[in-house]
Amino acid sequence: MQNFEFYNPTKILFGKGQIAAITNEVPAGARVLLTAGGGSIKANGVYDQTIRALAGHTVVEFWGIEPNPEYATLMKAVELARNEKIDFILALGGGSVLDGSKFVAAAIPFEGEPWDFVNKRAPIASAMPLGSVLTLPATGSESNTFCVISRRETGEKLAFSTVLVYPKFAVLDPETTFSLPPRQVANGVVDAFCHVCEQYMTFPSEAHIQDRFAESILRTLIEVGPKTLANPANYDDRATFVWSATLALNGLIGAGVPQDWATHMIGHELTALYGIDHARTLAVVMPHLFRVQSAQKEAKLLQFADRVWGITNGSKQERIEAAIAKTEEFFEAMGLPTRLSRYENIQPATPSLIAEKLKGRGFAKLGEKGEVGPEQVVEILTRSLVA
Amino acid sequence: MQNFEFYNPTKILFGKGQIAAITNEVPAGARVLLTAGGGSIKANGVYDQTIRALAGHTVVEFWGIEPNPEYATLMKAVELARNEKIDFILALGGGSVLDGSKFVAAAIPFEGEPWDFVNKRAPIASAMPLGSVLTLPATGSESNTFCVISRRETGEKLAFSTVLVYPKFAVLDPETTFSLPPRQVANGVVDAFCHVCEQYMTFPSEAHIQDRFAESILRTLIEVGPKTLANPANYDDRATFVWSATLALNGLIGAGVPQDWATHMIGHELTALYGIDHARTLAVVMPHLFRVQSAQKEAKLLQFADRVWGITNGSKQERIEAAIAKTEEFFEAMGLPTRLSRYENIQPATPSLIAEKLKGRGFAKLGEKGEVGPEQVVEILTRSLVA
Repeated sequence: MQNFEFYNPTKILFGKGQIAAITNEVPAGARVLLTAGGGSIKANGVYDQTIRALAGHTVVEFWGIEPNPEYATLMKAVELARNEKIDFILALGGGSVLDGSKFVAAAIPFEGEPWDFVNKRAPIASAMPLGSVLTLPATGSESNTFCVISRRETGEKLAFSTVLVYPKFAVLDPETTFSLPPRQVANGVVDAFCHVCEQYMTFPSEAHIQDRFAESILRTLIEVGPKTLANPANYDDRATFVWSATLALNGLIGAGVPQDWATHMIGHELTALYGIDHARTLAVVMPHLFRVQSAQKEAKLLQFADRVWGITNGSKQERIEAAIAKTEEFFEAMGLPTRLSRYENIQPATPSLIAEKLKGRGFAKLGEKGEVGPEQVVEILTRSLVA
Repeated sequence: MQNFEFYNPTKILFGKGQIAAITNEVPAGARVLLTAGGGSIKANGVYDQTIRALAGHTVVEFWGIEPNPEYATLMKAVELARNEKIDFILALGGGSVLDGSKFVAAAIPFEGEPWDFVNKRAPIASAMPLGSVLTLPATGSESNTFCVISRRETGEKLAFSTVLVYPKFAVLDPETTFSLPPRQVANGVVDAFCHVCEQYMTFPSEAHIQDRFAESILRTLIEVGPKTLANPANYDDRATFVWSATLALNGLIGAGVPQDWATHMIGHELTALYGIDHARTLAVVMPHLFRVQSAQKEAKLLQFADRVWGITNGSKQERIEAAIAKTEEFFEAMGLPTRLSRYENIQPATPSLIAEKLKGRGFAKLGEKGEVGPEQVVEILTRSLVA
């Protein structure tokens, strides 16, 4: 097992009616910036419950954080927070609102141009404390250090990470997610599944407990994904999905193991270029990445075949292909295409364009061993375009 | 799934050489009370590495925290800390040193008699911050809120819990545990196994991910326990055991599920009366508790048989008994007797004596449904005495 540091101080408040618990978590007398996306939280009761829980606090609202949160939008929130002398941020929404709010939290006290800590890794010395009410289970952003920000003017979609933006708390009330559109539920299930795979599908590293936890989440998502899509108001199915999505990317299963993340890096470029939903980019990249990297990932692909899909018959090659095919069936059953060719306007030159873009950003050696280079990116995307 | 709150802010520093990382974790200028048990940490290098990492700090040492840490001993540490105006505690040792140090941390600022927060649940308003270097994987105390304190004069062994005593950090360097006596390693494996069972072997509660995580830890302990006992200096086996023991009782698998803990409550009385090692009391109680409660625990016992032991053939009754027998074989293979009759000086009156003691402490309805009363305690211990 590799050495690791694991630290996750986010307090999880899980279950029915837990928004009310915010009352005890936001510091008394704090001036709160409430950040949000569109109006769905007004329709599903989250906004009203939150405002009730914040009685006695000064609340300033910032609406309009979009999917793939945009630098220009977020800088308006930073300006508002500075003018209003905010001292706590409460993010209401899904991964985009969470990620955007983390950027805002780090940008408020930052001296200089905040984009520098996204694309130049400028050091961050402090951040405004923030809490969250999660309304779209998928990214794990509610209890991790990651955020991904887009900048339309430069066609960039980039990630940064700092422990300073760990949410102080995350409210996860499965009932508030019953009204989500099926597409977002399906995307969330696949996103969580792929998060686990990025931390699991590498090479054996004597991380037995992490492997089994990862397999636990994968099997649970495979079981519960189609059920919660079919019966969105079944509390226990939805609760299982919500908790799985958080555990998929809260640092735990990634502690002490090699990690990949090449699928995400390629996927971000597809979103930046074509606006394809994040999870949908993963569904068209990951199966083909597994095929192209099947020699490097052989031992873990065989373990995945056995322990996650119960595939034990056939040659190594047959078991691996069967497991990848099962994974594709699962994504398709959730409604996510597994071929880039199913999207319109994708040019034959897209694979090489994306390989060039990644190279230009200094990402010419992706994957757990740096073996996903421009050539492999082209092969992965070409397979997804032609098959 | 039940509603839950999960909060665990302990920073885990895991792996070879991690004691050096303490340098960055203990506040600069802090006056540190170093707490320890016997001299083994001088023999295995932990003490020297720690002192080096604390260079520049004032360090006051308190030695002699014994197994089943004793109130009278700990009050001497409290007095020393108060006199020396300590502002950070660093515990070096296993569960007993950790538990004792947590008591000390809570007692230092406590006004009044500290035993009151152990046996009368007097509210605790603050605690001295503490960190830990774990040298004996077993109890999970290095990253949880629990501690168990004994008081010889009254024959008591009692637990208390508060988030105020969460260690700020826990150093887990598997190499520092290579020199542990085999008996302590074996006890640690069984202790961790039983911790998982207390949070798992109840009734189904639609906690699918928690169940799978629990089963992951159980299977891993079954695999790695005998290996790490036979080859104490194999790093990866030991690392897997160490991380499993922490995850067995850090709050994660217990979040949102019913819990039992009757085995622990009965076991504490056996330790208080006869001085039997904690883990060894669990090994003589748990299998018989499963048998006596097999109707109440039927669904989970069958799931345990299938998913942990791979037992799928036979009637329900046969599968349950086979799984319990396998569990006993595992404990015995680790060197822990599974019958109370194997210990000397246990009187025929012991079962009723312990049932009375528990009743006298207000614990007449133990278990996840309060169905382990005096009658069941007598039956469990009688089975363990006569079989």
